[in-house]
Amino acid sequence: MRILILNGPNLNLLGKREPDIYGHETLDDIERELRGHAGDGVRLDFLQTNHEGEMLERIHRAREDADAIIINPAAWSHTSVALLDALKAFEGRVVEVHLSNIHTREAFRHHSYISARAEAVVAGMGSFGYRAALEFLTR
Amino acid sequence: MRILILNGPNLNLLGKREPDIYGHETLDDIERELRGHAGDGVRLDFLQTNHEGEMLERIHRAREDADAIIINPAAWSHTSVALLDALKAFEGRVVEVHLSNIHTREAFRHHSYISARAEAVVAGMGSFGYRAALEFLTR
Amino acid sequence: MRILILNGPNLNLLGKREPDIYGHETLDDIERELRGHAGDGVRLDFLQTNHEGEMLERIHRAREDADAIIINPAAWSHTSVALLDALKAFEGRVVEVHLSNIHTREAFRHHSYISARAEAVVAGMGSFGYRAALEFLTR
Amino acid sequence: MRILILNGPNLNLLGKREPDIYGHETLDDIERELRGHAGDGVRLDFLQTNHEGEMLERIHRAREDADAIIINPAAWSHTSVALLDALKAFEGRVVEVHLSNIHTREAFRHHSYISARAEAVVAGMGSFGYRAALEFLTR
Amino acid sequence: MRILILNGPNLNLLGKREPDIYGHETLDDIERELRGHAGDGVRLDFLQTNHEGEMLERIHRAREDADAIIINPAAWSHTSVALLDALKAFEGRVVEVHLSNIHTREAFRHHSYISARAEAVVAGMGSFGYRAALEFLTR
Amino acid sequence: MRILILNGPNLNLLGKREPDIYGHETLDDIERELRGHAGDGVRLDFLQTNHEGEMLERIHRAREDADAIIINPAAWSHTSVALLDALKAFEGRVVEVHLSNIHTREAFRHHSYISARAEAVVAGMGSFGYRAALEFLTR
Amino acid sequence: MRILILNGPNLNLLGKREPDIYGHETLDDIERELRGHAGDGVRLDFLQTNHEGEMLERIHRAREDADAIIINPAAWSHTSVALLDALKAFEGRVVEVHLSNIHTREAFRHHSYISARAEAVVAGMGSFGYRAALEFLTR
Amino acid sequence: MRILILNGPNLNLLGKREPDIYGHETLDDIERELRGHAGDGVRLDFLQTNHEGEMLERIHRAREDADAIIINPAAWSHTSVALLDALKAFEGRVVEVHLSNIHTREAFRHHSYISARAEAVVAGMGSFGYRAALEFLTR
Amino acid sequence: MRILILNGPNLNLLGKREPDIYGHETLDDIERELRGHAGDGVRLDFLQTNHEGEMLERIHRAREDADAIIINPAAWSHTSVALLDALKAFEGRVVEVHLSNIHTREAFRHHSYISARAEAVVAGMGSFGYRAALEFLTR
Amino acid sequence: MRILILNGPNLNLLGKREPDIYGHETLDDIERELRGHAGDGVRLDFLQTNHEGEMLERIHRAREDADAIIINPAAWSHTSVALLDALKAFEGRVVEVHLSNIHTREAFRHHSYISARAEAVVAGMGSFGYRAALEFLTR
Amino acid sequence: MRILILNGPNLNLLGKREPDIYGHETLDDIERELRGHAGDGVRLDFLQTNHEGEMLERIHRAREDADAIIINPAAWSHTSVALLDALKAFEGRVVEVHLSNIHTREAFRHHSYISARAEAVVAGMGSFGYRAALEFLTR
Amino acid sequence: MRILILNGPNLNLLGKREPDIYGHETLDDIERELRGHAGDGVRLDFLQTNHEGEMLERIHRAREDADAIIINPAAWSHTSVALLDALKAFEGRVVEVHLSNIHTREAFRHHSYISARAEAVVAGMGSFGYRAALEFLTR
Repeated sequence: MRILILNGPNLNLLGKREPDIYGHETLDDIERELRGHAGDGVRLDFLQTNHEGEMLERIHRAREDADAIIINPAAWSHTSVALLDALKAFEGRVVEVHLSNIHTREAFRHHSYISARAEAVVAGMGSFGYRAALEFLTR
Repeated sequence: MRILILNGPNLNLLGKREPDIYGHETLDDIERELRGHAGDGVRLDFLQTNHEGEMLERIHRAREDADAIIINPAAWSHTSVALLDALKAFEGRVVEVHLSNIHTREAFRHHSYISARAEAVVAGMGSFGYRAALEFLTR
Repeated sequence: MRILILNGPNLNLLGKREPDIYGHETLDDIERELRGHAGDGVRLDFLQTNHEGEMLERIHRAREDADAIIINPAAWSHTSVALLDALKAFEGRVVEVHLSNIHTREAFRHHSYISARAEAVVAGMGSFGYRAALEFLTR
Repeated sequence: MRILILNGPNLNLLGKREPDIYGHETLDDIERELRGHAGDGVRLDFLQTNHEGEMLERIHRAREDADAIIINPAAWSHTSVALLDALKAFEGRVVEVHLSNIHTREAFRHHSYISARAEAVVAGMGSFGYRAALEFLTR
Repeated sequence: MRILILNGPNLNLLGKREPDIYGHETLDDIERELRGHAGDGVRLDFLQTNHEGEMLERIHRAREDADAIIINPAAWSHTSVALLDALKAFEGRVVEVHLSNIHTREAFRHHSYISARAEAVVAGMGSFGYRAALEFLTR
Repeated sequence: MRILILNGPNLNLLGKREPDIYGHETLDDIERELRGHAGDGVRLDFLQTNHEGEMLERIHRAREDADAIIINPAAWSHTSVALLDALKAFEGRVVEVHLSNIHTREAFRHHSYISARAEAVVAGMGSFGYRAALEFLTR
Repeated sequence: MRILILNGPNLNLLGKREPDIYGHETLDDIERELRGHAGDGVRLDFLQTNHEGEMLERIHRAREDADAIIINPAAWSHTSVALLDALKAFEGRVVEVHLSNIHTREAFRHHSYISARAEAVVAGMGSFGYRAALEFLTR
Repeated sequence: MRILILNGPNLNLLGKREPDIYGHETLDDIERELRGHAGDGVRLDFLQTNHEGEMLERIHRAREDADAIIINPAAWSHTSVALLDALKAFEGRVVEVHLSNIHTREAFRHHSYISARAEAVVAGMGSFGYRAALEFLTR
Repeated sequence: MRILILNGPNLNLLGKREPDIYGHETLDDIERELRGHAGDGVRLDFLQTNHEGEMLERIHRAREDADAIIINPAAWSHTSVALLDALKAFEGRVVEVHLSNIHTREAFRHHSYISARAEAVVAGMGSFGYRAALEFLTR
Repeated sequence: MRILILNGPNLNLLGKREPDIYGHETLDDIERELRGHAGDGVRLDFLQTNHEGEMLERIHRAREDADAIIINPAAWSHTSVALLDALKAFEGRVVEVHLSNIHTREAFRHHSYISARAEAVVAGMGSFGYRAALEFLTR
Repeated sequence: MRILILNGPNLNLLGKREPDIYGHETLDDIERELRGHAGDGVRLDFLQTNHEGEMLERIHRAREDADAIIINPAAWSHTSVALLDALKAFEGRVVEVHLSNIHTREAFRHHSYISARAEAVVAGMGSFGYRAALEFLTR
Repeated sequence: MRILILNGPNLNLLGKREPDIYGHETLDDIERELRGHAGDGVRLDFLQTNHEGEMLERIHRAREDADAIIINPAAWSHTSVALLDALKAFEGRVVEVHLSNIHTREAFRHHSYISARAEAVVAGMGSFGYRAALEFLTR
């Protein structure tokens, strides 16, 4: 099973930016932890990007090289129809992860375009959310 | 660690009602599975009820006998301010679980009063959502 | 044919409360009249309750013991997603009855969650609405 | 008792158009059936028209020649204030009938201007709705 | 100066329908009174119709045979974009008259499509509104 | 008959400000013209003020010294509930006048609190609107 | 004079839950204090319940055994049409009390269905609100 | 292939009314041009009407005598559910044409009921829009 | 303790205007009654004004000469952000009083800007509301 | 160049009220500072008022004695159409200044009627905002 | 005549993604077909990009090297004000093309920022839409 | 003090595009002018980009190399939550500049996500807005 793990804008700052909200772990920490948990036969592929176009094209390629996508769309959740469309063109499974509980933040963060395409949504579990998504997909 | 697992209205039908949406597992199956996963030192307590008053009073008692609550409020998510208030009066941790992805269903299911109190929200992972919540609370 | 006839909150006061709106007939009068009209082979079962949980559980049992439900959800029409969900878990036919014409009353009474599940809706015919529902189901 | 039975736009296609929604009966079938049911002393008068002006003027004349109106306003339910005004100028009783359950269709069909004037509303009972209206008026 | 005076749906009932709202004068009374007041050199032309198409076509002809239009669009005020478009294609002056004060009635009567094209609007003056419009145009 | 003619904020600039919208007549011109038209037995009283409190108190006194009020509330139309309340405490007749057609201006000018209390509303007739109001009240 | 004092969901926790918002007094303290203030000839009856059905039925009985109701509907204020309907079926006086100022809290707490039936509403006076209600009813 | 070309209210004025918006071509010019372009085996049928009822009935007949409809509903786009229903009862193809770009005009012109039934929509191409629709249907 | 009692626009008419809504007591009656109730050590200061500026400046001075304000903002409740700001600049306690139950009146009276600053709100108790406020502040 | 500097309600408290939001400078400090910065040939005129009428009339006079207005409308920004109208009748330049960033405060402060007339808007720069406005106008 | 043909995000997948909605033609097929149809003197230039910045800059250059733009903004239609602004800075003609009928899809697809700048809009004609746009521009 | 000056999409066209709205100065002119004004000890850094990702990453680096940001987010103001998040991760001061007064333009330009993070906002001062921002930050 090949799983692509996508992280959207500003997540490269994870661990450094507003740690009281987002925690002290960096994306590298999370990658390392997930690789540790992934069983045999699970191949993980990571991308963090601040360029929407780059993420769209990575999803396009995922049509060939991934069975599932775990995506933390960050700010794009609330504004990017293009991301929704790219995910609709992908035929595998999709799980959406948010580090914080978006429902307790500003009103414009309560709606995610991506949720309409996702099979499941996890919010507020911090970095554990990725691991829950991984387990959900691989059990 | 004492965890109370609450299930709201109609969930007693789980496994029987609309299995294509909610799956074939019953609440008993889920209880058994969760007990299997809970490590030592974790005590699980279950309640399913169709009576809002009963759930409110169980949450009141949880102030004395639980450290955390995992709640699937089902239909009450969208309509019960009383449930929100009861959970606000509880001082432990709260995780909200929905079997289906509520964001792909009718518009009135997109908003949950409970999310404003929950630390984390999981939706669309079926019965695995409870396990993710359990692991999140006990790690 | 087994038909369950459900009446929601405050309808136990029928005939006593605001008779200019709701008429002088009591629920007992209506029950008697409907039994008089029901042909052979039609079994009628009645429940009025002010407890939502009790109505939910009666609907759950209806999965085993009823072919159709005639429901006057009264105030719960406008607020109870749980009732909608219970009726969705019932596989027989459902007809919704309102004694008064809810469309000429306060704006919050114009929308009924139940209508999304009901096959037919009758409003404003007073107690005759139940009879129309009964005839509709049994012809 | 003189009852005028009005049918709005496109209902001349009844029985031919989308029979899975509207059934196989034609307006002629319905007329025949209603005449069969009307007791002595009940005179029925029918009009189907696709011209709003014609319906308005028929309602104006009803001030002289009818005691009650059964109206299926079809699409005009949602758009015609003129029809509402004509019915307000009529002093007899008015019952509104919809073949389908308008509450389960597009959002713009959930509101009917006519309901504000009607004494009772029946939706989703197919052609039986007319008969229920007739019985309601003549009992 | 040639003035066309248009009256919309149901206004043929004027003087007969709800006289406490609309007064006891008929359209004929109003016509007679206006003719009495119109000075030399003012030609008045009247039309009441319940057929929107007929009114549209009368306005089309007004492009040739009228300098101004006084219109009481009645219920069409609130629903007819076609009427607005026809009046936009007319190049003379337009005054809108309502017998009752539409701002104290149902919310859907507060907005008139026609007002966007009218030079002036008079509401609530009963039949005197037509005379005010006439004086306004001919002074 | 005693008629009080009230003019709201900025109307002291009439004739000077934006004459293409409001015309070249000043309030003095209008006062002179109205006095010319008022028949015997009609006493006119004028007030223009930019102080809401002054207008409220003038309306209070009108309870003693006026039978009717003609009011051009100008900008206060859209914002002053206090003015509405003062007029509600006055028991005579009230006519509302706007120089321009407020329905063709910014959206926030389409609603007037005063209209809910006024018997009649005239808009877009320029200074003739006052005269129409005067004639309406005195005929 | 017989006065029924009703307290809605979660109020059994009063004095224990969020004391900075709701104060340190318990319902028992309030009952004792009110009994101390009630003059001769005033009989007080108390009920706190977390079960909507129980409250509805207590209000039904109040038709026989109470002249007035003081109600703190708590969370049900914002969601229960059934409670509104029960109070409408009661013919005595009704005063609504909220411990906190609901207008400074979340937007969904600004509207109370009960206020449409209440004669008076007191919010933000803590337990003194009950006493003010009592004095208001008994003076 | 038989194509019915329908034109709604006020379009008889085409070429005469507001030529800067709608151009100088008349409907006759457009008919001539379309006939010139229609290949063999394509039969064109034209109707312009200001009477909604007439258009509804022409669409009803189209069930027998047309394979496709090109419709410029003009003002009815925004207000006629009856037209939508008639087109839903037609089983051939439907293309919607607007001469002007309705999205740059008043907000109430941005929504068309007809678009929900149309296969394709062309706006802002002037009379060429009809030809594009014709080519689209006949290629 | 120094308490300032403020009354907004039109309240000078109290006892004279719409007595069925506002009662027969005048502001003088209320002042006399309150002075009668105020215990030793409580100094009451009264102002009624129809001029918003005067009220703002009185509140400004209250920063020096009052410990608490009881305010009936009347119509300004719904429109005056300036009043809200003035009260925010006052550091003592604030109680808002409405004679009538504003929640049963027009929709625009349901929201009060002042409530966001008030510690408590009383509505619908007539002149007793002031006394309740006084007792609340002085106990 | 003559510049009028207007300050709306409650700004006389500047420096005293909520200094953490509005700073410690008083209006006098600001006046002194601005006079220090104004070059030769720039005449500054100041007014702070809590009376809307006074501000309206000062703006009226500005038609004769000012080339530009710098206005901090404070709370009136959000409620006064009269102020907007007065400024529209002024033909010079207008700059709007807010001490705080109104976009980060309550939602009702996000909209300013005045901005529709202002050439430029400065918010959140404290007293420096006036100076920026002055430089902008005089460069 | 130089025409630039722009295609927005995810359109590189055309022919591969959801062919039942978007058809089997690829962008290359469309390019080939359009080049075949373009007459002499028409130069076509194509760009598909998933990077908004790249499209903005291509439009900037079009100020120098194109007379018209045919744009299928895809998902950006609904979210990109930047694209609207870039097109506003282009002085040639603009036609907007959508492959599917966006009005029958999710509500958030019904509005396009681009339509406010486009001269014409074609939706639902599949790849023929580009050809219609080309013919419209070059006739 | 190190200040980063960011300019969003399409601003590279400044001076060329719609000069009546945006003026004739180019970004280079503005840069030169600002450098001229910046005192000793103020280091200015400029970036204009049409690529959101590039701007995000420049802001990320600003965490290390800037004390303050002056940003003209142009079209992204209204659509980019990612930009807001990047600025929230920056700990220095932020001032938002708009060349035109966005409050007098299309409704969708009235709201800026960035304002929620900015300390101050300047709109409508053309290129002087940058200078005001610079002075505000450096005084």
